[in-house]
Amino acid sequence: MELFVSAMAATLTTVAFVPQAVHIIRYKETRAISLQMYLVFATGIAFWLIFGLMLWNWPMILSNIVTLSLALTIISMKLRYG
Amino acid sequence: MELFVSAMAATLTTVAFVPQAVHIIRYKETRAISLQMYLVFATGIAFWLIFGLMLWNWPMILSNIVTLSLALTIISMKLRYG
Repeated sequence: MELFVSAMAATLTTVAFVPQAVHIIRYKETRAISLQMYLVFATGIAFWLIFGLMLWNWPMILSNIVTLSLALTIISMKLRYG
Repeated sequence: MELFVSAMAATLTTVAFVPQAVHIIRYKETRAISLQMYLVFATGIAFWLIFGLMLWNWPMILSNIVTLSLALTIISMKLRYG
């Protein structure tokens, strides 16, 4: 049960950033997006990734690599579209 | 060391949503924000909160209550400003 709940949590909080990235790619507009949010968030995810590496926990390592990639993609689009 | 890394990670991925909420409150504009992202993300955070309750892990419970509140605030503003 704990495994199911944590797997659901990790999957949902990771895939959530896909529709946001798609939204920006589609509309090429990022005015309402906070750059500061994504900079702080990506740094936090980098720490979760380090934590996953310390525990050598594969689901944690993989989901944080995906989330970090999505966050960095959103940051690069924010810098591009302003 | 693991405690420091996980505390940094939890703090950063929680407080990250404060500048996003402030950004929306200030500019009253949410066009670039993906509603789908925040709905999926808030559901995921609810699962992390349940997981924290299962482990009775206070830092996890508290940080997820804060993140969930911020995500719900952003959802309500997205629904208001469109």
